[in-house]
Amino acid sequence: MKKILIQFDTDSHPSVFDRVVAVDAGVDELFSYGGIHPDNVTSLVHGAIFTRGPADLKNTSIFVGGSNVVEGEKLLAKVRKAFFGPMQVSVMMDSNGCNTTAAAAVAVAGRHMTLKGAEATVLGATGPVGFRAAQLLAREGAHVSVVSRTLDRASAAVDSILEKYPSAKLRAVAADTSAEAESCCRSQQLVIAAGAAGVCFLQEGALSRLSNLKLAIDLNAVPPVGIADISTTAKAVDHSGTICYGALGVGGLKMKVHRLALQNLFEANDRVLDVESIYDLALQLVARG
Amino acid sequence: MKKILIQFDTDSHPSVFDRVVAVDAGVDELFSYGGIHPDNVTSLVHGAIFTRGPADLKNTSIFVGGSNVVEGEKLLAKVRKAFFGPMQVSVMMDSNGCNTTAAAAVAVAGRHMTLKGAEATVLGATGPVGFRAAQLLAREGAHVSVVSRTLDRASAAVDSILEKYPSAKLRAVAADTSAEAESCCRSQQLVIAAGAAGVCFLQEGALSRLSNLKLAIDLNAVPPVGIADISTTAKAVDHSGTICYGALGVGGLKMKVHRLALQNLFEANDRVLDVESIYDLALQLVARG
Amino acid sequence: MKKILIQFDTDSHPSVFDRVVAVDAGVDELFSYGGIHPDNVTSLVHGAIFTRGPADLKNTSIFVGGSNVVEGEKLLAKVRKAFFGPMQVSVMMDSNGCNTTAAAAVAVAGRHMTLKGAEATVLGATGPVGFRAAQLLAREGAHVSVVSRTLDRASAAVDSILEKYPSAKLRAVAADTSAEAESCCRSQQLVIAAGAAGVCFLQEGALSRLSNLKLAIDLNAVPPVGIADISTTAKAVDHSGTICYGALGVGGLKMKVHRLALQNLFEANDRVLDVESIYDLALQLVARG
Repeated sequence: MKKILIQFDTDSHPSVFDRVVAVDAGVDELFSYGGIHPDNVTSLVHGAIFTRGPADLKNTSIFVGGSNVVEGEKLLAKVRKAFFGPMQVSVMMDSNGCNTTAAAAVAVAGRHMTLKGAEATVLGATGPVGFRAAQLLAREGAHVSVVSRTLDRASAAVDSILEKYPSAKLRAVAADTSAEAESCCRSQQLVIAAGAAGVCFLQEGALSRLSNLKLAIDLNAVPPVGIADISTTAKAVDHSGTICYGALGVGGLKMKVHRLALQNLFEANDRVLDVESIYDLALQLVARG
Repeated sequence: MKKILIQFDTDSHPSVFDRVVAVDAGVDELFSYGGIHPDNVTSLVHGAIFTRGPADLKNTSIFVGGSNVVEGEKLLAKVRKAFFGPMQVSVMMDSNGCNTTAAAAVAVAGRHMTLKGAEATVLGATGPVGFRAAQLLAREGAHVSVVSRTLDRASAAVDSILEKYPSAKLRAVAADTSAEAESCCRSQQLVIAAGAAGVCFLQEGALSRLSNLKLAIDLNAVPPVGIADISTTAKAVDHSGTICYGALGVGGLKMKVHRLALQNLFEANDRVLDVESIYDLALQLVARG
Repeated sequence: MKKILIQFDTDSHPSVFDRVVAVDAGVDELFSYGGIHPDNVTSLVHGAIFTRGPADLKNTSIFVGGSNVVEGEKLLAKVRKAFFGPMQVSVMMDSNGCNTTAAAAVAVAGRHMTLKGAEATVLGATGPVGFRAAQLLAREGAHVSVVSRTLDRASAAVDSILEKYPSAKLRAVAADTSAEAESCCRSQQLVIAAGAAGVCFLQEGALSRLSNLKLAIDLNAVPPVGIADISTTAKAVDHSGTICYGALGVGGLKMKVHRLALQNLFEANDRVLDVESIYDLALQLVARG
């Protein structure tokens, strides 16, 4: 029986990127839909769950994507609501690559240092990728500084993570200038920059001034990058004693995680691949080496 | 040469249900289009008939679907009008599953009783599925009570069937309440309920009061069902001496009919699969057992 | 690794014709997009170039199509602009079949006569196909009369071809009636008619009056044809000493050229298949016989 992946994209045209990855992950048939939102998805989900028999439903899966993460989250919730008890299919959400990117970044970090107890800062931590990275670091027991432009937004992100991990060590921090951002990173061992395109958090030379920093990861793929000292292609490159990764340096693992997650969908009909379960897959890949 | 099925759907997003069935029927390539209507279909049909040579045209077929049966019928007519003599491809219409559902229901009925001369009632007989079921019952020589809310609509349906089967035994009946609907079914041997979602024709206990009834089929898949005594999953279940089928109980045969019809399209380039020819396929499946 | 063709169509529904040809050319996966224009294509192109590694990019290609050639040209330019240095994929443009049709027509002509130094007339030479045919004839060294309704438009087309082939022998001619069009063809050895649907350039009997004409090709597929003496299916048919081709007579080679061009895309990741390179493929096919 052929493996069918149904791509629900919140953008008007379904992502080429997600389609290529699906093909390369070994999906047999890809049904790609653009312009999907909570109000028009239910009958499409019913079409997925009411065609094949219960024993065959693991051969059909759903992927939720698109450039807008908030819309993707709403769509995922509506997709799951359309299931009827055991009549369900596995579903993965990765709008704008948020889950695979955050999972790969934190898994890369764990390859170079012990995250438990580490002093870690996430810049741009209220964006979709940064928030997920902070959540995964909290899960690993790091002491996480959650940095945003305003304290209100940073505190809201902290509260949200604490709901899931009540004993996590988190600190909300506001930083509006690159001087303030650099100041947040002093005495930190790990920094992950997850800002929007065009936002530079740490100016050139910052890494040489942050002497405690062991590892710095910049997830911005489009110049100007978020940490000026790191090129997008950097992959475990040393800079003043800091191991550095750029977005493309993390990208190899991110792609593998994306493909493995898609394959994982087809092992059962009740998987829900969110950031946590995608991170588990990233750890598996890192363990395999 | 690859078997290409072109799906023209009148809804904005092409049906996932129809796509999954097409894949499972063994179609090699599926071109799925949403938002198709008579005004924009012609050039797409020309693309289908003017690419491959006449001898290869049987490897390309068209499926017309969508939730609106009336629009589907108009679209089918326009598709056929776009053919150029021998430059044509086979085409199947099954908007909202109307043809495969009606064909499967009547074929199931024929498995349990002789339809010729049987007293049969179709509730909701002016809807797309009910109308088609009444037509097939008339073709089989049953005495068909065509029930609708108003006598005008029921009479129009009767007239339409008589055009095709002038010697058919048909009776137009109006029933606006469940008491009236139950009254229509007295002394009947077969009843098929084909109402819209949410319409309950026969209240709980009705089957035990209809002592002549041999077979009752409810085609409503979404509770509340059309015959309260029958669950959607009922498949040849006995209730007070009546053999009962719910929508999902008929669904297995319906799906097989749908798949067989799709396969049948690719045997020649001039098939037009409407309710009659799809019913013939259903009879073949029933005969095979 | 699967060969993926991404179809960007400027019409709202992607061409069925182009999809069937892509399947028959052996493409493994076809991503078809309708409603694509320069403003929404960039992120889709990025999805194509940023998924597979540089060494694998030749397995992904782009096809630009649709009924509007001018829009297709703009779209092609924007697609190419979205490439990042070596991060690019091969791309072919064939809106409305303009390139494959013109290439096939001129290649067919070269099979029957020496084009170098030949007196050749293109009727409808300012339309997309006619302009391309004139350009290819100029490249081959023919003396080309570029005919349009107004001298201004004909001269503009001549100037445009001269930019590319400065030593070409070209003449701009205006012809507004069929008498004038016939007059243009006197003492010519080759005429290619590439008008819009419904435009008849040469009335019935014209071929018998044009005694010098060796070869006449009419590319109009929909009656009334552009040269009344030639049926759409004519393929090397003699008429008063003139070898005649209709649109379908050229169509066989056109289809082969289209398929070969698609296959050619996947040989490297930097091909840009425009009219010249598609013509080179047409010549290869003619040479093979």
